[in-house]
Amino acid sequence: MKKYKVAILGATGAVGREMMKVLAERDFPVEELHLLASERSAGQKLQWKGQDLTVEPACDEAFRGMDIVLGAAENDIAKKFAPAIVKAGAVFVDNSSAFRMDPDVPLVIPEINPEDAKKHKGIIANPNCTTIVSLVAINALNQDSPIESIVASSYQATSGAGAGGPIELMNEVEALREGKSYEPKVFQYQIAYNVIPQIGGEAFEGYTSEEMKMQNEGRKIMHLPELKVSCTCVRVPVVRSHSVSIVVRTKEKISVERARELIAAAPGCRLVDDLKNKQYPMPLDTSDQDTVFVGRIRDDLTSDNGLNIWCCGDQVRKGAATNAVQIAQLLIE
Amino acid sequence: MKKYKVAILGATGAVGREMMKVLAERDFPVEELHLLASERSAGQKLQWKGQDLTVEPACDEAFRGMDIVLGAAENDIAKKFAPAIVKAGAVFVDNSSAFRMDPDVPLVIPEINPEDAKKHKGIIANPNCTTIVSLVAINALNQDSPIESIVASSYQATSGAGAGGPIELMNEVEALREGKSYEPKVFQYQIAYNVIPQIGGEAFEGYTSEEMKMQNEGRKIMHLPELKVSCTCVRVPVVRSHSVSIVVRTKEKISVERARELIAAAPGCRLVDDLKNKQYPMPLDTSDQDTVFVGRIRDDLTSDNGLNIWCCGDQVRKGAATNAVQIAQLLIE
Repeated sequence: MKKYKVAILGATGAVGREMMKVLAERDFPVEELHLLASERSAGQKLQWKGQDLTVEPACDEAFRGMDIVLGAAENDIAKKFAPAIVKAGAVFVDNSSAFRMDPDVPLVIPEINPEDAKKHKGIIANPNCTTIVSLVAINALNQDSPIESIVASSYQATSGAGAGGPIELMNEVEALREGKSYEPKVFQYQIAYNVIPQIGGEAFEGYTSEEMKMQNEGRKIMHLPELKVSCTCVRVPVVRSHSVSIVVRTKEKISVERARELIAAAPGCRLVDDLKNKQYPMPLDTSDQDTVFVGRIRDDLTSDNGLNIWCCGDQVRKGAATNAVQIAQLLIE
Repeated sequence: MKKYKVAILGATGAVGREMMKVLAERDFPVEELHLLASERSAGQKLQWKGQDLTVEPACDEAFRGMDIVLGAAENDIAKKFAPAIVKAGAVFVDNSSAFRMDPDVPLVIPEINPEDAKKHKGIIANPNCTTIVSLVAINALNQDSPIESIVASSYQATSGAGAGGPIELMNEVEALREGKSYEPKVFQYQIAYNVIPQIGGEAFEGYTSEEMKMQNEGRKIMHLPELKVSCTCVRVPVVRSHSVSIVVRTKEKISVERARELIAAAPGCRLVDDLKNKQYPMPLDTSDQDTVFVGRIRDDLTSDNGLNIWCCGDQVRKGAATNAVQIAQLLIE
């Protein structure tokens, strides 16, 4: 079996570390794993499959000989190193938003548009976490009738802001308990016992960048150029796993029963939908898992062709690291 | 100035205690205040305006001579005592859901339909807390064009479950901190660091009782019998104040600018809407206040006549106690 030289760019962050974990869990055929990060983190040792790996400084030369580079860094870092990665002949599977809307870069959720991955020119983008969770939940409906619009309100975990998010939440809980003050650094305001209706800066007529991603990325991933999405993204004091309340409207009506069938059979989904027995997706239940849980499926009472749906998925895993490793798996199939 | 004999039924609960506070703050012309509760709570002393009041057992005789009874008890208690209250000639302003949909009982938000209060036959119902917060936020739009539909996702504080809700949240935080287990009693599951997409039991085709209230009560309060509402009610680990993400569609298009004007001028509302400067409603900012904060106003991207709106309001105050006292104020005007 062929083995591959893999690098993780931004290996010391929350998503980078999860990528290491997912590569090991899925037994990805790794010949060499290189952990790349900033000069500041270089030299650090991280355990992987029983070995001690030393974090190397990210630089153009570090990508020579690599087959696959998994990107877990911010946009500026992704942009800085993309040319060197492509030049080195590696495929860059990038989790940042830098290349997602580039027409030359496929944007891939393996459960939805795996065929797009084959069309890459050196870079494949990993979609936004809330977009991944939501689209994995509802994409199967497209089999019966194309999705025309989505109204979504998210309940996003602190992990979406990186490793510092949950730490800030816990520090605030502790400070409040002791009657001390704590100055938020990661979030705009105190997130403990609060919800904050802003993720990202203003991007389009009152919508934040995070809120526009589901429409822009959704159109590209599902090949629905006319898709309309009204999204409200909200940070909640949850450690991990995003939840999304969705009203999805399709061209033709899909019944609740049929939607349940489609979603139960959809890859990457688990139907958890039994209100009478208090069974529905919750962030606590989906954390540390790759599956998106979907439930509370019922008719939209405001339109003839709509369904109301609730879904949860681990933002660090399926929303980021797992999706990237799944794309890498497509590449070597 | 005429003074009134007032009783609070269920005075020892979270809403009952808040009613006492609001009566004092608003200098309601009280001749006598009677605190009524179950036999178990009778005898307890509660401070009000510098006096020690003794909690009396609720019984039919306790309502004799009363002018106004504020109900802060559960449905069964409200139903049990309503006949005696009406017979005693008092007006029963009831916060339970027992009489809300009774055609003989006005359902009143004083900022919206104060004239309905005058039509009472002894009972006036106080609407559901999430309904009050949402309708106060959006009702002004009806001035320009009638509201046709609402898609709402709520972020409801633990205080909505009574005084025991926030206590359970804090007990769970403490137990988790100490690595101990804690058996949820108030909520279906752990609410600390979680969100629970169920408030109330199943009521209508997959919707919970809480989710149907905004449609049923909204139709009655705004006199919009055709109003359609798709609601998802979610409990979040917040102490007090509910938040709601709303897409509201009107018959004719209302511009974002005009919506801001209408909402800024609407009674009971404060416009907090400046995303660039990180100004938007948050539960931490609205707690212990009577005003509903409204912001994040922007065009709905999925329809021609829609607006996307975010609002927050204190569920114990404007969502319950304050609204009831405001109704009592209407009665004595």
